[in-house]
Amino acid sequence: MPDYKAPLRDIQFVMNEVLESDKHYASLPGCEDATPDMISAILEEGAKFSERVLAPLNQVGDREGCQFNDGEVTTPTGFKEAYQQYVEGGWPSLAHDPAHGGQGLPESIGTVISEMVGTANWSWGMYPGLSHGAMNTLSEHGTDEQKHTYLTKLVSGEWTGTMCLTEPHCGTDLGMLRTKAEPQADGSYKITGTKIFISAGEHDMADNIIHIVLARLPDAPAGTKGISLFIVPKFMPEGDGIGARNGVACGSLEHKMGIHGNATCVMNFDAATGYLIGPPNKGLNCMFTFMNTARLGTALQGLAHAEWGFQNSLVYAKERLQMRSLTGPKNPEGAADPIIVHPAVRNMLLTQKAFAEGGRALIYFCAQLVDKVKLASDEEKAEADALLAFLTPIAKAFLTEVGFESANHGVQVFGGHGFIAEWGMEQNVRDARISMLYEGTTQIQALDLLGRKVLMSQGESLKGFTKIVHKFCKAHAEDEQMKPFIEPLAKLNQEWGELTMKIGMKAMQDREEVGAAAVDYLMYSGYVSLAYFWARMAAKAQNAVAAGTDEEAFYKAKVTTANFYFQRILPRTRGHVEIMQSGAANLMDMDVEHFVF
Amino acid sequence: MPDYKAPLRDIQFVMNEVLESDKHYASLPGCEDATPDMISAILEEGAKFSERVLAPLNQVGDREGCQFNDGEVTTPTGFKEAYQQYVEGGWPSLAHDPAHGGQGLPESIGTVISEMVGTANWSWGMYPGLSHGAMNTLSEHGTDEQKHTYLTKLVSGEWTGTMCLTEPHCGTDLGMLRTKAEPQADGSYKITGTKIFISAGEHDMADNIIHIVLARLPDAPAGTKGISLFIVPKFMPEGDGIGARNGVACGSLEHKMGIHGNATCVMNFDAATGYLIGPPNKGLNCMFTFMNTARLGTALQGLAHAEWGFQNSLVYAKERLQMRSLTGPKNPEGAADPIIVHPAVRNMLLTQKAFAEGGRALIYFCAQLVDKVKLASDEEKAEADALLAFLTPIAKAFLTEVGFESANHGVQVFGGHGFIAEWGMEQNVRDARISMLYEGTTQIQALDLLGRKVLMSQGESLKGFTKIVHKFCKAHAEDEQMKPFIEPLAKLNQEWGELTMKIGMKAMQDREEVGAAAVDYLMYSGYVSLAYFWARMAAKAQNAVAAGTDEEAFYKAKVTTANFYFQRILPRTRGHVEIMQSGAANLMDMDVEHFVF
Repeated sequence: MPDYKAPLRDIQFVMNEVLESDKHYASLPGCEDATPDMISAILEEGAKFSERVLAPLNQVGDREGCQFNDGEVTTPTGFKEAYQQYVEGGWPSLAHDPAHGGQGLPESIGTVISEMVGTANWSWGMYPGLSHGAMNTLSEHGTDEQKHTYLTKLVSGEWTGTMCLTEPHCGTDLGMLRTKAEPQADGSYKITGTKIFISAGEHDMADNIIHIVLARLPDAPAGTKGISLFIVPKFMPEGDGIGARNGVACGSLEHKMGIHGNATCVMNFDAATGYLIGPPNKGLNCMFTFMNTARLGTALQGLAHAEWGFQNSLVYAKERLQMRSLTGPKNPEGAADPIIVHPAVRNMLLTQKAFAEGGRALIYFCAQLVDKVKLASDEEKAEADALLAFLTPIAKAFLTEVGFESANHGVQVFGGHGFIAEWGMEQNVRDARISMLYEGTTQIQALDLLGRKVLMSQGESLKGFTKIVHKFCKAHAEDEQMKPFIEPLAKLNQEWGELTMKIGMKAMQDREEVGAAAVDYLMYSGYVSLAYFWARMAAKAQNAVAAGTDEEAFYKAKVTTANFYFQRILPRTRGHVEIMQSGAANLMDMDVEHFVF
Repeated sequence: MPDYKAPLRDIQFVMNEVLESDKHYASLPGCEDATPDMISAILEEGAKFSERVLAPLNQVGDREGCQFNDGEVTTPTGFKEAYQQYVEGGWPSLAHDPAHGGQGLPESIGTVISEMVGTANWSWGMYPGLSHGAMNTLSEHGTDEQKHTYLTKLVSGEWTGTMCLTEPHCGTDLGMLRTKAEPQADGSYKITGTKIFISAGEHDMADNIIHIVLARLPDAPAGTKGISLFIVPKFMPEGDGIGARNGVACGSLEHKMGIHGNATCVMNFDAATGYLIGPPNKGLNCMFTFMNTARLGTALQGLAHAEWGFQNSLVYAKERLQMRSLTGPKNPEGAADPIIVHPAVRNMLLTQKAFAEGGRALIYFCAQLVDKVKLASDEEKAEADALLAFLTPIAKAFLTEVGFESANHGVQVFGGHGFIAEWGMEQNVRDARISMLYEGTTQIQALDLLGRKVLMSQGESLKGFTKIVHKFCKAHAEDEQMKPFIEPLAKLNQEWGELTMKIGMKAMQDREEVGAAAVDYLMYSGYVSLAYFWARMAAKAQNAVAAGTDEEAFYKAKVTTANFYFQRILPRTRGHVEIMQSGAANLMDMDVEHFVF
């Protein structure tokens, strides 16, 4: 049976040693409570809950899925009880405002908990994950009354939340959405329309569900500038509890490739009562608050499936005996050698490890930026905001792409057994597949990165990051041990800017060049970003070894993995460099009519 | 709903124009019947059967799966009836010896039928596919009596066959297998043991099932040199039909990621009566006949999922309206442009197209080699055999890897809808995933290619192919229009040899270097091989356009796709070149004990 062990040592390495979270929290107002001891205690509790309660339900969720019966949704065995434990443990309130019952801890600590929860059981983690998005939206854009009525209940976990964006005819292109909001005399609205792909849209885990819904006012301008945001509760709030049922119901559940334990609902709004959040026609702007959180949350999914794949395929690779090492038996007493002796198996294990641990560093770095955007002084905040805007599409798209790749390596290590359900490896692939699609596909993230972020800022957005990399390379220029990392990294960092210039010049002639280069540009950016984090981790690990440590194995493995990353993963950039410069013509020259079979 | 249209025009382009099958068949004894008109008629019938009977059952098979009930297996609705039609149409006998009821057509025509059948419904196609493997084994290694008793019934399709290799503790490492064969006084054997992953091991489609089983004689040497091959029928043959039930039964069905319509069985042999095929202890050699067929058959699966993905995502990309082209509306009357206007979508469509059509050329080329191995004169036969041995692991591993990639592009074109079962795109991914695992994983194929084929022949095996490429490049050296293809191809062809030399030198120092380089070497070889076929196709298409044609769209699309392949796919070789030369140390330096989480 597959299993999950929270990689607490690695989590602490990234948080404490690489990203120096003690200094980070000490520098932010309101983070005084986040002492290393307290963080450590929280993480240990989160690890226990994830390992003992959630991980055992991961296969159950996949096998049973959610059941739909006349508008009601039943979640898989144990999901509801696990949610009760989660609420009792106070987890929903972790990173929320004490004014509404929250514990006021920094978002970056919530991110680590989300990582453990999501790796143990992604389908389950989506229920509180969606609530978290709804809470952030309410917290940022709701009125005091709305916060009092809805946010408090979400923070306590008594109620859960959703985000209702997609409609059957529009996903990426939200400007086309049709759901209507008709103003009522009492200041409320009647919401009517159909939303699809609503995760956690209906379930049996909480008393009430608060839908955050995009809809159009009667006089709204066409397109994205005519979209407003509404709160639509499943049950109308009444006193401290719930009252009448509102006109929103789940019409059906989707049959999906994976994340079976999560209810993906068609939601029908039939003159449902709703309340405007934020200014009219500014719904999409308000929604971006949620989307950025959601994109980082989805980046976590890439890490989650890489970690799960790594852990389980590593156990198998050490146990499964098959063939002899090409350089002679390594397990002469056994019938064969464990497959971890084979270079090709090691390659798959190290690829997963490199993406999981490198991805962890990238995401935790982003999570610290989220803290800064929320809490730092204006100047630091603006800088963090710009950097986060640049890194978010990279983290989302790159990490989900390599997370899916990693999940597939996990299957491959198992050979034919990887295809069989009981081992849990194929579920990991199926669950991972959605991550490149929802919250904006890889292709959309790539356009966001290259078009909206990098080129629209004349490259400033990229420079915000490359100057950090440059500074790091300069600081380690004299370090002989770091040479195998610093030399290639510095070179790539320079190339990154040059490539951007070249594509930018071409894009001025032909805007299709942006779309034609974007995905390769994004993947390139991902590989280089992770190289930076691997170099940072290698530096810390080398220092630790040099200073003397009783954890030499841990630190040496870090350096070996960094070396692997630089020698066996980073060369992939070579293809992307050529392809992104190959121009739009090789894609656009084909007449639409010539696309036939 | 997903659908399939047999790409007859492209099939004929590859067969007739690129590979000149008229000359090919005319040169082989016994292929006189394979006239272009006859082939065309057969392909049209095969297309109809695949499109109308099999394709509509593809989703049914996935949804229903096979049912197990106390040793009996029920195939999905319609599978049995489709098999009856297949038998009535005479399809099982197509490429088999007239002496046993076959039609005596060349194997290469059977390959095209298998492509259409498998693309329409891979799970269904595996039932006759396994029979085909059993027939080839019997045909090559069986006695006249065995052929009379078993082969005739398999050729007619009344009975089906299986291949029983894998056991719970051994897949790749067949030397470890434990199934026993005890000789009986009457010359038969009692076979006892458990086999797993037996495709089509039990079902309700035919009266009898003939298992071809690997087992060990009592006095057999250990390892792979002590394995023999046996025929074990489900029912003992009696007269012209079946008699008593034999001691072999299906113990359970596996729950799998995909190919749900195919019964993947645990088969228990309990003193089942079996008959030796081929010499004692030479079972593995005999099995290689089957394995090579099976590997080419699995290569077809890569093509199948790329073609299915391409066809269905192309239809969607032309219909789905979402966003505007970056260079202004292309469908101004509509609410948005069809997504095929976006470069990133075209990139995914063209990638699928390039792999499907390029893969078709590679496989049909291999199929012609199979014909030659069977029918040509000794010298030509030996040459074809060597070339086929070289290309088989490339075709199997490379095409299944890029077939899986293509299936994922198919999902990605659909956005979130790609994850939903009803569209059929996620099934295509799940069904494709097994192809990199069974019949030898990608990693095993890579070792076979680089270790056993290329390095063990001192590079001769590679030269057999590179000299063909070289000859082609030379023949087109003066053709200005072909320059964009010939220049890079010639360069790669030379580099291929140089890389092989370098790795060969390193491997003499350290055998781990073979395993460390093999997968990247294989992928590199795949990209270069396909480049050769794309260049050949481009040459034919350019000639057709120059000569004047009423199918200009078809030929121009070929040239555009070739161009796309060279500019956007082939640069991937750059990463593989660096990685395969990076050495084994970056994989082997990590102590096993340091692999932890």
